[in-house]
Amino acid sequence: MISTRTPATLATAQRLELGDEYTLDAAAAVGNADLVILCAPVGAYAAIAETIGPHLKPGAIISDVGSTKQSVIRDIGPFVPDGVHFVPAHPMAGTEYSGPEAGFAELFQGRWALITPPAGTDEDSVEKIAEFWRRLGSMVEIMDAAHHDSVVAIVSHLPHLIAFTICGTADDLENQTRQQVLKFAASGFRDFTRIAASDPEMWRDVFINNREALLEMLARFSEDAQAMARAVRWGDTAYIENRIARGRVIRKSLIELNQA
Amino acid sequence: MISTRTPATLATAQRLELGDEYTLDAAAAVGNADLVILCAPVGAYAAIAETIGPHLKPGAIISDVGSTKQSVIRDIGPFVPDGVHFVPAHPMAGTEYSGPEAGFAELFQGRWALITPPAGTDEDSVEKIAEFWRRLGSMVEIMDAAHHDSVVAIVSHLPHLIAFTICGTADDLENQTRQQVLKFAASGFRDFTRIAASDPEMWRDVFINNREALLEMLARFSEDAQAMARAVRWGDTAYIENRIARGRVIRKSLIELNQA
Repeated sequence: MISTRTPATLATAQRLELGDEYTLDAAAAVGNADLVILCAPVGAYAAIAETIGPHLKPGAIISDVGSTKQSVIRDIGPFVPDGVHFVPAHPMAGTEYSGPEAGFAELFQGRWALITPPAGTDEDSVEKIAEFWRRLGSMVEIMDAAHHDSVVAIVSHLPHLIAFTICGTADDLENQTRQQVLKFAASGFRDFTRIAASDPEMWRDVFINNREALLEMLARFSEDAQAMARAVRWGDTAYIENRIARGRVIRKSLIELNQA
Repeated sequence: MISTRTPATLATAQRLELGDEYTLDAAAAVGNADLVILCAPVGAYAAIAETIGPHLKPGAIISDVGSTKQSVIRDIGPFVPDGVHFVPAHPMAGTEYSGPEAGFAELFQGRWALITPPAGTDEDSVEKIAEFWRRLGSMVEIMDAAHHDSVVAIVSHLPHLIAFTICGTADDLENQTRQQVLKFAASGFRDFTRIAASDPEMWRDVFINNREALLEMLARFSEDAQAMARAVRWGDTAYIENRIARGRVIRKSLIELNQA
């Protein structure tokens, strides 16, 4: 059973034959479900949880795919009835596209699915969600929600914030330069625009719901960028080379870990 | 005739059969050349120009492939004898790899080659360099060196500085988080590490030799990043969505211009 927030999305899901039944009534959708997975911008979770909470079947599992996990536990947790198992999850896969048409069968293969069960979560339910993601081809790791939020702040949320920002900076340039930026976009800038093409609503919600970790990582990054600016201004070649060399080390580690 | 700064690079070029003659003596290499192209980190240009300047043949053209153009004109210009034509150029192509083994036949196809001749440069010589790059498959544009430096500061130099910086920021994290960053590098961060794997000496020289334009663009970016941080902190959803939407506009323009 597929339930969406808008008729347009539901029609698309139906055309693509993504489910066997379709409804705009989320409460009705969950009544008979053994497993409910929320897939919406994380800012919409609280309202959805409030709507569906009373209708969840005893013994059912409720999970999600959101990129922030402390906020999800905060927003969904209070609406989960006794006897329903809440297993927050984050499949780290996706492209700059969104919506039903952006999915494809191999999306989760070889990617990590992070599961962040609150203390006391039913272990059988956690294992079922782990197995669900394994069968989609993912590698699974169980971790603390706060630690999850720190890690994704630097590997995913900050890079997205930076990509959105530099595209905005370019878009603000005087007209002639802006036109030439578009014309001569070299590989560096082009890669940033790919990231920056992601869904505004989803990322707005991610940023706001991982505020503390994101601002902490952005503050560290900003300090480092200012230190680099100072080194460029004063010609501190040793500092610049050292910082560039760090990038190569990280890249080499990623290649060794088969993540590049 | 190929001349390199180190015996190791010369041996590699020779093994790959990139030229017909090979020498470590740059002055000897240029004596009989109709066209000399400097391909070294731009910080090495002044010393090379001083070495080869007196040996350049009357009527010869000297060009280059450096990513900064005002500094190249400043560093090479004084050593170009009367009757030798100096045509600075910047083929906007390349990967994160460097050295003789990183080249391939299609590298310049469909990419821009920017030519920035100082006022009064011999027009026939400019056209010869333009035709050289066209025959390698590039599109050619002639522009002012200062304008070139502004445009590449935002499309290429700033994205590289940012990528180096965020990799360094990640590398500085506490050990457990750092390990997990490597383990869970999502697409956002992974794309940054590819850029960040570039040659430290080359990029150190680019940053220092395009200092003014780079610091100007970094300052604009930093202001924008701080404004985004403030919006995240205070939950200014309209601001965040607007900035994210800008990224999509830029991306769409690139796709329309066939640069994505």
